Amino acid sequence: MENNRKIIDTSGALILAASSVVGGKEFEGPLGSLFDFHDPSDRFGQKTFERSEGEMQRLVLASAMTKLGVGASDIDALFAGDLMNQCVSSAYGLLEYDIPYFGLYGACSTAAEGLMLASILVSRGISDLAAAVTSSHNSAAERQYRNPIEYGGQRTPTAQWTVTGAGAFVVGRKGDALAEIADVFPGIVVEKGVTDAANMGAAMAPAAADTLLNYFELSGTSPSDYDIIISGDLGREGVTILGELLATSGVDASGKLDDCGLMIYDLEAQDVHAGGSGCGCSASVLAASILPKLKRGELRNILFYGTGAMMSPSSLKQGLAIPAVAHLLHLKAYGGAK
Amino acid sequence: MENNRKIIDTSGALILAASSVVGGKEFEGPLGSLFDFHDPSDRFGQKTFERSEGEMQRLVLASAMTKLGVGASDIDALFAGDLMNQCVSSAYGLLEYDIPYFGLYGACSTAAEGLMLASILVSRGISDLAAAVTSSHNSAAERQYRNPIEYGGQRTPTAQWTVTGAGAFVVGRKGDALAEIADVFPGIVVEKGVTDAANMGAAMAPAAADTLLNYFELSGTSPSDYDIIISGDLGREGVTILGELLATSGVDASGKLDDCGLMIYDLEAQDVHAGGSGCGCSASVLAASILPKLKRGELRNILFYGTGAMMSPSSLKQGLAIPAVAHLLHLKAYGGAK
Repeated sequence: MENNRKIIDTSGALILAASSVVGGKEFEGPLGSLFDFHDPSDRFGQKTFERSEGEMQRLVLASAMTKLGVGASDIDALFAGDLMNQCVSSAYGLLEYDIPYFGLYGACSTAAEGLMLASILVSRGISDLAAAVTSSHNSAAERQYRNPIEYGGQRTPTAQWTVTGAGAFVVGRKGDALAEIADVFPGIVVEKGVTDAANMGAAMAPAAADTLLNYFELSGTSPSDYDIIISGDLGREGVTILGELLATSGVDASGKLDDCGLMIYDLEAQDVHAGGSGCGCSASVLAASILPKLKRGELRNILFYGTGAMMSPSSLKQGLAIPAVAHLLHLKAYGGAK
Repeated sequence: MENNRKIIDTSGALILAASSVVGGKEFEGPLGSLFDFHDPSDRFGQKTFERSEGEMQRLVLASAMTKLGVGASDIDALFAGDLMNQCVSSAYGLLEYDIPYFGLYGACSTAAEGLMLASILVSRGISDLAAAVTSSHNSAAERQYRNPIEYGGQRTPTAQWTVTGAGAFVVGRKGDALAEIADVFPGIVVEKGVTDAANMGAAMAPAAADTLLNYFELSGTSPSDYDIIISGDLGREGVTILGELLATSGVDASGKLDDCGLMIYDLEAQDVHAGGSGCGCSASVLAASILPKLKRGELRNILFYGTGAMMSPSSLKQGLAIPAVAHLLHLKAYGGAK
């Protein structure tokens, strides 16, 4: 039986520009000074948190295009999505840009999913410039998925903190790139019976393990071939479980695993329990910290993957376990960094 | 300034198999006998309407694969999405298939969006076989977007009836095809100030006009070049407005426009007001009626496009107008039908 899992060659697809924005809590974290924009109030001049999230998307796409010296009319494909019901942060936030629009829903894997599709279209000459944008907002996500923040509900130790943030990326074939997307590897949806919505790390770790183990096998590589292997928002619980799942399969990833959700906050000082989460977590950290390190040559060959928990508040109330997916990008330093 | 709107050549991408399922009301409509499956109870053996919708997705993908004589391990990309919050019908319904999963959110444009991406990947040799699946369920959609059906709220004349149905498509390069996807044209998000959630046709018609007018201009064609131009679910109101918008721009489409939402029900006898809607409307009608007509050569050269209204119940309550998008497929008869 032929294997339907394939690594998709996207060599030649370059991340030419990226921009990030975060809220107040993220600005106070260890990476605070690296983000392009922040608003201590998390409001971004808007009357509702949902509109604030959309405004973050508008802002980072404008900023990424400005960095590259291009306008919306130069970009021929836009991949976007978010955590809000019906992905309204993307639909409304990006409304002013008349760019062919591909709406995505990949939960917290959306940054990786968007970059995966953008790099496929660009590397094969279908798009000249494609953009990927995503976001999350703590106050908007909390009231939709759990309770309004005013409720002050207590959080369990495995709970993660939804990042207020957004990231935008422009992918093309020519220019002074931040990094090359060498190849991409889409994940399958995995559900291993975890029903605790306050333990996303446990729900998503099996999908992460599935994607990584298949990628290592198909590529003939192992963790030691990469400078680092970074997840989007597995958090402390998820990274620990992932390490154990990989070890059980005979893959030693010790010292190689890191997570955007662990990088964006000081977990103890900022009282965020197991770390950051949300579409905006991996997007903002990739744009603000990881890509600049690839550009400077401090990282040269990495795996970056986003994990998404695909449940809804309704599916949880109906007693269903949490399905998850993990999409992977193989990123390499490019050009001057060589 | 270069135009960022491009028709994407997907020639060689063939729809090799399709399957459809509907509920009781759709089975009683004019196309009833054409659908592969139906359940008069709309339940499909499940305890919740959300699970019923997922089960329809599982069923049609299984059926489409069976028609083609392939299994999940032969398909290397799955594009899926639906109207439920966080697209849970797709995530749960398709969970048993270990196929690389690309989650989409395009509201009722999802069938077209999925086929667009599947045909791009297949035509460029990235995928060998790719599938696109989507669904909607009247009872699940009504209670999420408006009120539970038990509430018995009165409906306005412009309101549409969410179709209980699903469609699945398998796209490849070799075989006895139902039709060829000659080229595709992604739409931009358009919002013209319509705030009435009971008038989706008016909200979506401007996006449909934008996509069609740009497509005619870029392709150097006009409505008379096509046997028919079929929308997913503009309904009676939307098709009328679209005709007027095209006429205002000097494009005569009289006698050429039709709509899956007008085809699936007897509007008067079945009391569905302006017609059918929902992701499952265009997907089930394309699979059950339109593709077989292309296969038999009764249609030879058509435009099929899906329109999606990208609002959420929250965005409407917050007073925002409804943004919409229209994605277009250019379908041609293939092989034996020539």
